[in-house]
Amino acid sequence: MPDSTADSTADSTAVANVLASRYASDALIGLWSEAGRVRLERRFWIAVLRAQFDLGLDIPAEAIEAYESVVDKVDLDSIRAREQRTRHDVKARIEEFCDLAGYEHIHKGLTSRDLTDNVEQYQILESMRLLRLKYVHLLDAVKDRAETWRDLVIVGRTHHAAAQPTTVGKRLAMFGQEMLEAFARLDELIARYPLRGLKGAVGTGLDQLTLFNGDTARVAQLQERVQQHLGFGRQLGAVGQVYPRSLDFDVVSCLYQLGGGIANLARTVRLMAGAETATEGFVPGQVGSSAMPHKMNTRSTERINGLQLIVGGYVHMLGGLVGDQWFEGDVSCSVVRRVALPDAFFAFDGMLETALHVVDEMGVYEAVIAKELERFLPFLATTTLLMESVRRGAGREAAHEAIKEHAVAAALAMRQANTGSNLVDLLGADERIPLDATDIRDILEHCDAFVGMAGNQVDTFVEDVSRLCSRYPEAAQITKGRLL
Amino acid sequence: MPDSTADSTADSTAVANVLASRYASDALIGLWSEAGRVRLERRFWIAVLRAQFDLGLDIPAEAIEAYESVVDKVDLDSIRAREQRTRHDVKARIEEFCDLAGYEHIHKGLTSRDLTDNVEQYQILESMRLLRLKYVHLLDAVKDRAETWRDLVIVGRTHHAAAQPTTVGKRLAMFGQEMLEAFARLDELIARYPLRGLKGAVGTGLDQLTLFNGDTARVAQLQERVQQHLGFGRQLGAVGQVYPRSLDFDVVSCLYQLGGGIANLARTVRLMAGAETATEGFVPGQVGSSAMPHKMNTRSTERINGLQLIVGGYVHMLGGLVGDQWFEGDVSCSVVRRVALPDAFFAFDGMLETALHVVDEMGVYEAVIAKELERFLPFLATTTLLMESVRRGAGREAAHEAIKEHAVAAALAMRQANTGSNLVDLLGADERIPLDATDIRDILEHCDAFVGMAGNQVDTFVEDVSRLCSRYPEAAQITKGRLL
Amino acid sequence: MPDSTADSTADSTAVANVLASRYASDALIGLWSEAGRVRLERRFWIAVLRAQFDLGLDIPAEAIEAYESVVDKVDLDSIRAREQRTRHDVKARIEEFCDLAGYEHIHKGLTSRDLTDNVEQYQILESMRLLRLKYVHLLDAVKDRAETWRDLVIVGRTHHAAAQPTTVGKRLAMFGQEMLEAFARLDELIARYPLRGLKGAVGTGLDQLTLFNGDTARVAQLQERVQQHLGFGRQLGAVGQVYPRSLDFDVVSCLYQLGGGIANLARTVRLMAGAETATEGFVPGQVGSSAMPHKMNTRSTERINGLQLIVGGYVHMLGGLVGDQWFEGDVSCSVVRRVALPDAFFAFDGMLETALHVVDEMGVYEAVIAKELERFLPFLATTTLLMESVRRGAGREAAHEAIKEHAVAAALAMRQANTGSNLVDLLGADERIPLDATDIRDILEHCDAFVGMAGNQVDTFVEDVSRLCSRYPEAAQITKGRLL
Amino acid sequence: MPDSTADSTADSTAVANVLASRYASDALIGLWSEAGRVRLERRFWIAVLRAQFDLGLDIPAEAIEAYESVVDKVDLDSIRAREQRTRHDVKARIEEFCDLAGYEHIHKGLTSRDLTDNVEQYQILESMRLLRLKYVHLLDAVKDRAETWRDLVIVGRTHHAAAQPTTVGKRLAMFGQEMLEAFARLDELIARYPLRGLKGAVGTGLDQLTLFNGDTARVAQLQERVQQHLGFGRQLGAVGQVYPRSLDFDVVSCLYQLGGGIANLARTVRLMAGAETATEGFVPGQVGSSAMPHKMNTRSTERINGLQLIVGGYVHMLGGLVGDQWFEGDVSCSVVRRVALPDAFFAFDGMLETALHVVDEMGVYEAVIAKELERFLPFLATTTLLMESVRRGAGREAAHEAIKEHAVAAALAMRQANTGSNLVDLLGADERIPLDATDIRDILEHCDAFVGMAGNQVDTFVEDVSRLCSRYPEAAQITKGRLL
Repeated sequence: MPDSTADSTADSTAVANVLASRYASDALIGLWSEAGRVRLERRFWIAVLRAQFDLGLDIPAEAIEAYESVVDKVDLDSIRAREQRTRHDVKARIEEFCDLAGYEHIHKGLTSRDLTDNVEQYQILESMRLLRLKYVHLLDAVKDRAETWRDLVIVGRTHHAAAQPTTVGKRLAMFGQEMLEAFARLDELIARYPLRGLKGAVGTGLDQLTLFNGDTARVAQLQERVQQHLGFGRQLGAVGQVYPRSLDFDVVSCLYQLGGGIANLARTVRLMAGAETATEGFVPGQVGSSAMPHKMNTRSTERINGLQLIVGGYVHMLGGLVGDQWFEGDVSCSVVRRVALPDAFFAFDGMLETALHVVDEMGVYEAVIAKELERFLPFLATTTLLMESVRRGAGREAAHEAIKEHAVAAALAMRQANTGSNLVDLLGADERIPLDATDIRDILEHCDAFVGMAGNQVDTFVEDVSRLCSRYPEAAQITKGRLL
Repeated sequence: MPDSTADSTADSTAVANVLASRYASDALIGLWSEAGRVRLERRFWIAVLRAQFDLGLDIPAEAIEAYESVVDKVDLDSIRAREQRTRHDVKARIEEFCDLAGYEHIHKGLTSRDLTDNVEQYQILESMRLLRLKYVHLLDAVKDRAETWRDLVIVGRTHHAAAQPTTVGKRLAMFGQEMLEAFARLDELIARYPLRGLKGAVGTGLDQLTLFNGDTARVAQLQERVQQHLGFGRQLGAVGQVYPRSLDFDVVSCLYQLGGGIANLARTVRLMAGAETATEGFVPGQVGSSAMPHKMNTRSTERINGLQLIVGGYVHMLGGLVGDQWFEGDVSCSVVRRVALPDAFFAFDGMLETALHVVDEMGVYEAVIAKELERFLPFLATTTLLMESVRRGAGREAAHEAIKEHAVAAALAMRQANTGSNLVDLLGADERIPLDATDIRDILEHCDAFVGMAGNQVDTFVEDVSRLCSRYPEAAQITKGRLL
Repeated sequence: MPDSTADSTADSTAVANVLASRYASDALIGLWSEAGRVRLERRFWIAVLRAQFDLGLDIPAEAIEAYESVVDKVDLDSIRAREQRTRHDVKARIEEFCDLAGYEHIHKGLTSRDLTDNVEQYQILESMRLLRLKYVHLLDAVKDRAETWRDLVIVGRTHHAAAQPTTVGKRLAMFGQEMLEAFARLDELIARYPLRGLKGAVGTGLDQLTLFNGDTARVAQLQERVQQHLGFGRQLGAVGQVYPRSLDFDVVSCLYQLGGGIANLARTVRLMAGAETATEGFVPGQVGSSAMPHKMNTRSTERINGLQLIVGGYVHMLGGLVGDQWFEGDVSCSVVRRVALPDAFFAFDGMLETALHVVDEMGVYEAVIAKELERFLPFLATTTLLMESVRRGAGREAAHEAIKEHAVAAALAMRQANTGSNLVDLLGADERIPLDATDIRDILEHCDAFVGMAGNQVDTFVEDVSRLCSRYPEAAQITKGRLL
Repeated sequence: MPDSTADSTADSTAVANVLASRYASDALIGLWSEAGRVRLERRFWIAVLRAQFDLGLDIPAEAIEAYESVVDKVDLDSIRAREQRTRHDVKARIEEFCDLAGYEHIHKGLTSRDLTDNVEQYQILESMRLLRLKYVHLLDAVKDRAETWRDLVIVGRTHHAAAQPTTVGKRLAMFGQEMLEAFARLDELIARYPLRGLKGAVGTGLDQLTLFNGDTARVAQLQERVQQHLGFGRQLGAVGQVYPRSLDFDVVSCLYQLGGGIANLARTVRLMAGAETATEGFVPGQVGSSAMPHKMNTRSTERINGLQLIVGGYVHMLGGLVGDQWFEGDVSCSVVRRVALPDAFFAFDGMLETALHVVDEMGVYEAVIAKELERFLPFLATTTLLMESVRRGAGREAAHEAIKEHAVAAALAMRQANTGSNLVDLLGADERIPLDATDIRDILEHCDAFVGMAGNQVDTFVEDVSRLCSRYPEAAQITKGRLL
């Protein structure tokens, strides 16, 4: 179809960022949008300007006011035109702001990276703080479902095969536990995440020092004010033109790790849905597939797994910058960070948004769960029977051998004939096992006992999450958006 | 700055795709834009509908006309609203198109993936064809510069240290050679890239077969027509709901490989720029940096290296889909491909666009090149001196030892005192070397001979590229866009 | 346990390469072992020496004999000791070989990379050829199973949910088809894989040219002989110290792609095993797990998926070298290639070995398959019923809506009560569907027809693979090793 | 060369782990060697056995003694033969140990993963502790060199172009600062790294609970003892068969981050070596290259960059396990972790070992540094001149424009003619700049002032590292191994 690609109205800005437009929340988008970024930079310039003024530089007070009055006059087309001409993005934004204000006072003693690195670090830190709250909110939701299904016994599986019973609540707590571990890393990272600060072209702070006639004390005050303006707890000492790019890797690999427990939960829900023991939720009006309307596709949990892989791609990109700095800095990192930083946050935010829906809307099919349990119970009990046999004096290896023989035979028979199993009778009749069929049936009846300490583990998890929620009460205010 | 993120006008579509808006060409964007995609799908539906009509299905001719008349009425907002309601993107687009046309005839016997996989493969194949031409155009430009500098002798470096002389033209031919190898892969890939075709929900073609009352011959004709409509040379036989995702990996890993020679060229230009032997070009009006205006930053070559890393991130994402298919297909791949496929093409296209500028605009500083050569010539000649000594009867290891001693001493002295070297005299005086200082100076004077077969290699490269340009005459029509 | 790590006998060579010792075949290991490599290099040196002798260089014939007589005297400890001293691995191996032979004639006009790059390319090409045969052998095995189960109907699944029927044979053909596509790439790659050749320190061929007094014709003959000795079809023209590292990426990304179909097959077998419809095979004597002996863990298919991920890690490593060449070459690639090249081949070979076992030993449980089919048949038929309804005059969207309503209701009921479904009756009674319950039951009875063209697709696949086996008759001789 | 690969003595264990045998230290290898691992497991079994005995299980005291007496009888061949038979590695090691001891008492109530996950976590934690000390030692070395060169002025570069002066000491402190940030992460990770503990087949602790007749208190005591035996500060609550694999990603991505500052230092040393301002050190007896003996190749720093990429490959592998858990666990992770965990530690350890040499042995060529500074000084001063002009009342943009014009012209002239620059005179004569040539020369003379706060930053860095060394006094005992 040769002419099909002709699109007379094609406009280079017509391609939306898919991750932002389909998956991320408005709050996060607000932090990273192009216009939002322009405003952040302008406020940063004004903060520096005001501090320079306060600390004695010769700056007319009315210039500051002039800049402030035009902060919100953001004309992206005009800025783009300037960039086309200068081939320098920061320069374009300086010119635009100065022309609007009618002054030439901002950016004094600054290099591009004094502006961009610090503003980007602000975006990163704020994004992490925002996502931290959402993560707590998600943990809270996981906690609720874990409590609900605390004692609902289900076949536990390893290697995808029935292994021992567990409970649905415990299973959720297991994924939640993984989330808690990742959360601890995020918390530590936010606490120590350092600002580069105003360090100049090669990190020696020369230009501010020159501006202030070599007065290191006043430069230090300036640095301090900038740090406070941006809300950071500390700043780096010896840096180059840029902050170390391994910090970006720290951040985005942390997002990836935060996704681990969520992605595991999603994957297991997908597996359960195929076995009809659970559903991720099916919204009224939703169409399974255009051809097969009844199909309750696990589109949200599949999306979660997809988004996790996407975050992994950004880990790859930002990981590739680690160790690739030349001297005091170069900007082969520039285009990479321009793409990977916002997109990693958008993708991860989309994952959280989707997960909030899944955890709230998921359901379990108790009848199917019960039937599955019935089918596998004699097999699931073999470890207990082995333990019990050993406790009654059997040699571990001999008992193990007997159980193996009969269990394998029974399992094969069951699959080949598609019937229930006769494992209980086979074991009861074997003299290597010091239990008869009645003993075994007695044991099987106490099926609830087979879940070991599952309930206690749920309780501990619930306590841990509750404690976290108390630490972050704002998390309760988070509301999830609509899924596309 | 607590209020800085509040952006009352924030609109979730306000975030542009950075790769598209800043780096990719209009032609490529046209293939992947949202509206363009809608039109491609509609034309695909009509092609199927017309084929079904021709092959005897009961479809009113006026329905086809009705659909055709509304192909270009693309209202993305309306489609988005429908998707919000149905939570199903394809369903939303079917409804929109049918409502516009006033008929319900498209998508007969199709599943979502019959539509989307085939249209996406069309986008992919067309993108590869487009980029193939641009790549030939770039090779042509590299060839021109290689010819220009065919005999300009320069210090060749390995491990970043001066090794032997080569020529600037040969250096470019070396990177061009790597590009040619990658090009061969692209060419083969385009030739064999297979269409999935209309295979239905699980790949058995059931639904079309049902529509045609089990007439496999007519279904085969339908398949053939769809293949021709999309311009593919072949199609897959046994598939599932989707085509194998390892094909996406083939495509994007090929892009990454195509970037190898370009990225090597860019990296070496960056290194040369730092040593002042070359420049990537400096456009009048461009500002080196806002603080240091004279600085001729290698922003384009740095960008090329950054974009290569970005493509690598998409290789990671699409690589993660390889081997992760469940049964006849699942769409955990959906969001990943939605992001990674267009963005990989945008990034790679941006790399080609940037490279076209660099190759055309780069320059060399002959005076600096000559001075560097003068400094290192006695050292660069050591392999020749070693060969010559061996040829005159010296033992290889003994001569090597002598040269090593003197060369290391001379090199150290030169760096510690920052003077020229006395290597010639040291070697001439050593009896392990059957050459005296005069012999050595004679050899050094024939410096042009030190470049071995560099010139011939350039010639061969030029011939190879010329042949390629003859095969793809349309490549000459490509014009590069403006860089941002 | 503080003292537990003390291991008085610890020897730095005591750690075996896990991939080689546990998973790879002896044939592949032979190509990459340390001693094997030493012998390859020595034969390479002798080939060059003999060619130089034939082409007129002044080399004593008895020196060649002396070198030949000690080719197999490989003392790795001695070589290692020399490397410790010189900090240069190639130098160490030259000295060892020369001392053994009592001559100093090898390596004339060569640089380290003239030796190592060419020998490594030989290892790579031979490995690809070896694995090509094994891959054909595996395809042959997949073909056999596809034929066996050509008509065994099974529930086809997409999104892990029952979608439409297919056959087990078709499912295998689907994975086999993906393998065939990747195979085409491998075949093309082997055909075009180019040798670097003897190009000297910076790729200009200076040193050989000097040795031959500037006689380019004789140097060309030498190049040609080396190429033939190594069994390559072509060689590169303009290179640097090394061949372009994007070639390594081409090779290892091809291995990864070759793994795609296999990994998909493995993943689906894992999924089927959990649903008890298939087994990857269970060898007599094998223990499911130490605690649960009956458990038939899918250890081989899990291993396949794990090995695929491992190959992906090496793609990452070698991908990181692409575009990172400085000038004519540097060896930041050295350690990376030393690890990633052999290990990628070992991992992929282990994957093939494991897959040969799985494909040969896998089984299906027909009774379970039949029961699953029975459960889902009314749902699986909905696309057929929709098509049939449309054919009988129903509007597509209205019929779709009716089917959706009833199918969703029936599916929910079935899961909530764990009974069979009443979908047939519900649909038969709905007037939007021009079929009554009897019509529907008639359709369901022709369940075999629901697999569409599955059988034909299997037949085509079988033909394709048979043709391939004819092209590579040696593939039939491949025997699989034992699994650990 | 058809027969060249035949290697009659080929033995599948003959391939050594390259990373262990060439790069890692004996201490680390001792933690991960096959025999060492067997001993760790045996001590773990005995610890559990003894705890079970103490807590009242019916175990003969002499059995414990019997096991203890054979801990060091490690016969890897025998174990391998058992594994060949059982196809189960843990089972093989249980049988071997029991046969040696003549008892069947170990592994009671344990599953394979109770053994392997815990022992592997021990290996991981101990490795991190070991590397933490080595990292402190390396930081100490960086600190020493930073002090030495605290005031040695050098051209600072960004985008590889001369930007502003800095000092060599500051440059090292900059890389050291990045290391300190990564160190903080490692420290936090070690502090919180949690043990999985004895949780049984699906994580419910069922089997131990059964062994102890449902006495949860005694099971808790058992858990506690195991944790103490392994030296962990905490353990996980709700887990499955395995600990969450995102913990492995945390660990190995931390190693990668720790490598960032080192790899940046290495890359910059490579760049400096090419410009002859520094050397990574050149050991007496070392050969530059076999063909060019004088070449002081940056093999160690190249190796560091290569090893960093290798660690990145293992991040990829272990990252691929994150979010891929099925239900309570599966072992598609098994082969991946078997390869990636030890190899990541070996690679990172090799990087530290190499870095210790580089930092100790590197040197700078002061004469070359001085000459470079002289060439660029007028350009480096432009920011200062701009600041000074602004301070004297010039408009920032106008002054910037003037400086740009003259600097660009002077830079071009200098490169085209290869002379010094006349920038000072050009600027002095321009009326937009309120400075004359004399003013400018005065400023240039105070070149030391151009390094801003470089010295203070070094001092702060030195203090930070000194504090760290006090916290980890054992770090001073670390000795580096020999490099191969």
